[in-house]
Amino acid sequence: MTAPTMTTSTMTTPTPNARPWRATILTLYPEMFPGPLGASLSGSALARGDWVCEARDIREHGLGRHRNVDDNPAGGGAGMVLRCDVLAAAIDAATGPDDARPRLLMSPRGRPLTQVRVRALSAGEGAVIVCGRFEGVDERVIAGRGLEEVSIGDYVLSGGEIAAITLVDACVRLLPGVMGKAASGDEESFEGGRLEYPHYTRPRDWEGRTIPDVLTGGDHGAIRAWRRAESERITAERRPDLMGKPRG
Amino acid sequence: MTAPTMTTSTMTTPTPNARPWRATILTLYPEMFPGPLGASLSGSALARGDWVCEARDIREHGLGRHRNVDDNPAGGGAGMVLRCDVLAAAIDAATGPDDARPRLLMSPRGRPLTQVRVRALSAGEGAVIVCGRFEGVDERVIAGRGLEEVSIGDYVLSGGEIAAITLVDACVRLLPGVMGKAASGDEESFEGGRLEYPHYTRPRDWEGRTIPDVLTGGDHGAIRAWRRAESERITAERRPDLMGKPRG
Repeated sequence: MTAPTMTTSTMTTPTPNARPWRATILTLYPEMFPGPLGASLSGSALARGDWVCEARDIREHGLGRHRNVDDNPAGGGAGMVLRCDVLAAAIDAATGPDDARPRLLMSPRGRPLTQVRVRALSAGEGAVIVCGRFEGVDERVIAGRGLEEVSIGDYVLSGGEIAAITLVDACVRLLPGVMGKAASGDEESFEGGRLEYPHYTRPRDWEGRTIPDVLTGGDHGAIRAWRRAESERITAERRPDLMGKPRG
Repeated sequence: MTAPTMTTSTMTTPTPNARPWRATILTLYPEMFPGPLGASLSGSALARGDWVCEARDIREHGLGRHRNVDDNPAGGGAGMVLRCDVLAAAIDAATGPDDARPRLLMSPRGRPLTQVRVRALSAGEGAVIVCGRFEGVDERVIAGRGLEEVSIGDYVLSGGEIAAITLVDACVRLLPGVMGKAASGDEESFEGGRLEYPHYTRPRDWEGRTIPDVLTGGDHGAIRAWRRAESERITAERRPDLMGKPRG
């Protein structure tokens, strides 16, 4: 076997930001972005170019002089429904034919977001995220543009924007180089299907409450065993629904 | 029985903002607030005085010249842990002895937030919300200051701030007068333990996809029945875990 011939171009290490993770967000409130994603961990990563935040205003595709985007629900009822033609035009304008990114619609009716899905999204090229408002969006655009409904939890928000911010923050922190140490993501909640063990730091004695002796004893095997047992105990107590799944 | 005597004071209708809902948020990133809560529905409610957003900087209670707030985890490991003494001082300074508001710690290890809990929080006086950062917070402050861990979903964020924004948005939209019509909250997802039925609006025909005939037929009984059946069907398909609970 001979070593493969290496050309100059294959030997060049790509710059880390050659293809940043790209979040394209369709919203009626583009001024909400990057919002909290512009601060702290996500904000530094944004400034470094590790990811790109593109907020596109759905209203640019509104109809008529008033750029209407919504109308009354068919069959009656409270609230207004986002029109499928307007939303489809906004999606088409924001995505090219080669855009393979998943298209997500933030909605309480969607599949609940999990850390497994966050890892998969984070490992991809980014996401196109549609934020609903009013009573909802016209159902036909979901099939018509291949949107996947995603829910961040079993509660209702005033719109999809804060849900989009939540999803993007979860993804961005897992991008290479964003967290200080690579190890930081491995022992946290939901990795291996368990909640995280308790943490302690100085002072050793606080208001009569002390740090468990095992953590200050220096026996690393005992510390690992204690943390694993605490993680099992807390998960079983608080989230028995997670216990059926293998620890991974 | 005689009619109760009414004094001038009991006959006076209290002004709507007499006791606004109060969110006190303890964070290392006070600049993230109100953030997206300052726009749209929550933003208008904030401007009207229906609720108050108080972000308090934990670092004001940091130790020494550098206002340190964190330290290495006892027993070793990656990341830093928020000190219990610093966080307790911040909580004590932000809450008086008569403050009966629930004290929440946003954490993936917490009890999952539900719409039922959101309704209960919204009906109360507000909430004191602690945002974790780094690897976590020293476990002892949770019992020491009666914090309740609340999770917005089964994924991990870069900190508690975006989770706090999510929780507050869900609560604020349910405050009296915040949504346009009182009816708007009654037929949405999770009310009665079911996901919401699909919505449609004009145009009637879009890319060959039409609005279901029942919704344009004008038979309100049939529309109600169709919506209820769709709501059941979608919930059974997507979230069989919700089906065990009574429709309410």
